[in-house]
Amino acid sequence: MSVTNELLKKLGIENPIIQGPMGGGPSTPELVAAVSNAGGLGSLGAAYLSPDQIGDTIRRIRALTDRPFQVNLFVGGWRTDLSFDPAPILALLSEIHTTLGLPAPTLPQLGPDPYPAQLEAVLDARPPIFSFTFGVPDRDAMSRLRSRGILVIGTATTVDEARLVTEAGVDAIAAQGSEAGAHRGTFAAPFEESMVPTLTLTRQIRGALSTPVIASGGLMDGTDIVSALDAGASAAGLGTAFLVCPESGAPDAHKRAILNAGQDKTVVTRAFSGRPARGLRNDFIARLEGKERAILPYPLQNALTRTMRAAAGKQGVAGFLSLWAGTGVARARPMPAGELIRSLVEEMNQGRRAGSATQPR
Amino acid sequence: MSVTNELLKKLGIENPIIQGPMGGGPSTPELVAAVSNAGGLGSLGAAYLSPDQIGDTIRRIRALTDRPFQVNLFVGGWRTDLSFDPAPILALLSEIHTTLGLPAPTLPQLGPDPYPAQLEAVLDARPPIFSFTFGVPDRDAMSRLRSRGILVIGTATTVDEARLVTEAGVDAIAAQGSEAGAHRGTFAAPFEESMVPTLTLTRQIRGALSTPVIASGGLMDGTDIVSALDAGASAAGLGTAFLVCPESGAPDAHKRAILNAGQDKTVVTRAFSGRPARGLRNDFIARLEGKERAILPYPLQNALTRTMRAAAGKQGVAGFLSLWAGTGVARARPMPAGELIRSLVEEMNQGRRAGSATQPR
Repeated sequence: MSVTNELLKKLGIENPIIQGPMGGGPSTPELVAAVSNAGGLGSLGAAYLSPDQIGDTIRRIRALTDRPFQVNLFVGGWRTDLSFDPAPILALLSEIHTTLGLPAPTLPQLGPDPYPAQLEAVLDARPPIFSFTFGVPDRDAMSRLRSRGILVIGTATTVDEARLVTEAGVDAIAAQGSEAGAHRGTFAAPFEESMVPTLTLTRQIRGALSTPVIASGGLMDGTDIVSALDAGASAAGLGTAFLVCPESGAPDAHKRAILNAGQDKTVVTRAFSGRPARGLRNDFIARLEGKERAILPYPLQNALTRTMRAAAGKQGVAGFLSLWAGTGVARARPMPAGELIRSLVEEMNQGRRAGSATQPR
Repeated sequence: MSVTNELLKKLGIENPIIQGPMGGGPSTPELVAAVSNAGGLGSLGAAYLSPDQIGDTIRRIRALTDRPFQVNLFVGGWRTDLSFDPAPILALLSEIHTTLGLPAPTLPQLGPDPYPAQLEAVLDARPPIFSFTFGVPDRDAMSRLRSRGILVIGTATTVDEARLVTEAGVDAIAAQGSEAGAHRGTFAAPFEESMVPTLTLTRQIRGALSTPVIASGGLMDGTDIVSALDAGASAAGLGTAFLVCPESGAPDAHKRAILNAGQDKTVVTRAFSGRPARGLRNDFIARLEGKERAILPYPLQNALTRTMRAAAGKQGVAGFLSLWAGTGVARARPMPAGELIRSLVEEMNQGRRAGSATQPR
């Protein structure tokens, strides 16, 4: 199956396959480059990197590939002005810190939103493609990106958000369906009202707007990708499928949890970061069920649980790690990224042949 | 959108929408008739009915509609020769029986497989369409169904099963994807190896065979149905979507649990019946997690937990009910079945228009 369309030409990629950005570790330069070298679009999740790290990491990617790649940032959602009572969550975390042999947790001091400085680093490094989630960059940022020839992809979880993102002037919309792993990108309505399944969301956006759509959420194999293209997508975004690749920097305990899931055991939880995100249900999530009021707002909860998550990753304790994963988790395959892309393309060919047997309607 | 194809003509229905059979209560004559009267295919799940009840219920359906409908039976899987230790499960159930004010549980005596007598009742009542799951009827049964002019639909969870069902001579294959609620129909391979997502399974079967496919599992709205048709299905089967209709006989606690689910909280569990089935995770499932060896084989576990389930249904205790539901649970809408079908058709029209905006590839 040779898929081609305006978006793929614009992005300069061969296959309609985009590795999801996955900030916080999984998207190593090795993974990004392996995906791009195999004709997909590799993506660096840079939201948790300092400006210097962003520059360095982009240089490392460029040393490994001369193909296009994407850098993703969180634009918005950084709130430091909310009031809360930290006592319940500190008590709950104290027990876990003891279990992990860590000193008692303390409330971290939050700095200012890292996004403006991160954006400067991106503008300086000038990656071929920039993408954003959690909000929309302002007019000035968009025009500076444009003037440097950087293509821009914006994330939407509803048609309304797709409209806002389109009005900002993006080249494509990443439609994040409710099946997607990790943080919800929702920014224009309550999270609960923004859980639209991937193919439904793709069709809805295509029905309402002419901006090309990248479908993401729950897509794991080539036939899933064909279904996404049939729903009107120009390309498919896959996160969990790439998270288990050997090139991914996700902790081994995270990869093992995904590969052993057997079935979809994911839930959407605020437990780890204060912001709804989908991952495998584990001990930490279970401890906070029914105690959701103890969870601090994002990004404070995220900063507060970082010590626990880092130690759990090092010690291989899956129960206290954020095991981000989409609903397709049971179908993850541990193979090198380039091999995975070749398998996906082969499955697309088979799926397309099967689809062409469709009866007349 | 006016969908028409050979299967719809053969079944004599207007819309490519089939209400899943849902044995054990939900598929009342009122629900079956409301679906058929609205141009879909209503289905009676008759697996837990006696031969007399099957005859009576079919008569009641015929009093409410003159349109085609379907009757479904479990064909196979009835094992009474397995050895086990009932002590652990009886101990666990004893506590729950006490909670529900029931006498202590006792191991039920299993009779012979009810299927042969149920089949006779179906042959006598001669519904327009018969469907089966858990196995394949023998050659004699198939020829007697045929000679009475009864169309036959067989359930498959893998391409291999679709092939076996086709060889038996069915008119259509109900492709049960891994997203589907209630019992897995798997009969030819281990359950864990037979969890193929709905659209993937649909494409795979269409690629391998020419028998028409009814896609089922996780489909909740009109755009989902369009995606299923795009994947090569001739019609879509929806269970959970109809379970919450006022005409459905599911216990109110079951309907409420679905309507309040908010997100996909389903798991595949053997806890209730000894056979893997998908439903909302609740107290009973949680109590058996890590104690799976205590679960008796199907159908004994099913018979053993019946007292608990019946009492829980009457008392409105969702924690001890089998809350069967597919992964699309968060999108269930409590509306009369006829109204639901009209909404589905309208959404299909919108989805089709959106899909037709697909870019050239």
